[in-house]
Amino acid sequence: MDDLAIYFAKTPLVPAVIQDAATGDVLMLGYMDEEALQRTLRDGKTWFWSRSRQNYWLKGETSGNYQYVQAIYADCDRDAFLIRVHPQGPSCHTGARSCFFEKIK
Amino acid sequence: MDDLAIYFAKTPLVPAVIQDAATGDVLMLGYMDEEALQRTLRDGKTWFWSRSRQNYWLKGETSGNYQYVQAIYADCDRDAFLIRVHPQGPSCHTGARSCFFEKIK
Repeated sequence: MDDLAIYFAKTPLVPAVIQDAATGDVLMLGYMDEEALQRTLRDGKTWFWSRSRQNYWLKGETSGNYQYVQAIYADCDRDAFLIRVHPQGPSCHTGARSCFFEKIK
Repeated sequence: MDDLAIYFAKTPLVPAVIQDAATGDVLMLGYMDEEALQRTLRDGKTWFWSRSRQNYWLKGETSGNYQYVQAIYADCDRDAFLIRVHPQGPSCHTGARSCFFEKIK
């Protein structure tokens, strides 16, 4: 049995919070299915499932802005991940360091 | 028109990353619909939609461990929130400060 399956029992697509391991900044939120998590563990770089493109997506594949994985945590309900990374360049496709730049309040 | 509606156009339930404003620690991930976001803005404390209980949930209502909101951000796709808070006590129902304590790697 695959141990990782426990994280995808409730839902096949789990939100992954990406945090800069050095600064603590929250960079982005992506989604992983079991295959994306396996690829992330294998490569040491973040892979996601793109809901809009319906395809696997190696972060940095086109931009070169890879996120090198330092640590991966699951939450107490095992339905969310926290991934601490060393980002190579900006994490947002807009060129911003973090995707969370629009202040609501 | 309600300005907040733009954040719920894709999906009525948006993941909200809760971060300790003082330490940068990622504490938990919850889900908000528009009503939960409105209540959060109104009260200055985090409200979520509980998917398991199918009800609104004021974080800290039973434990006293409220999360006082410092700032709310949306991401570039407007389908995720980052909420920086001053937590009153532990954020996890297990008593842990953060829900992300299970190390996968």
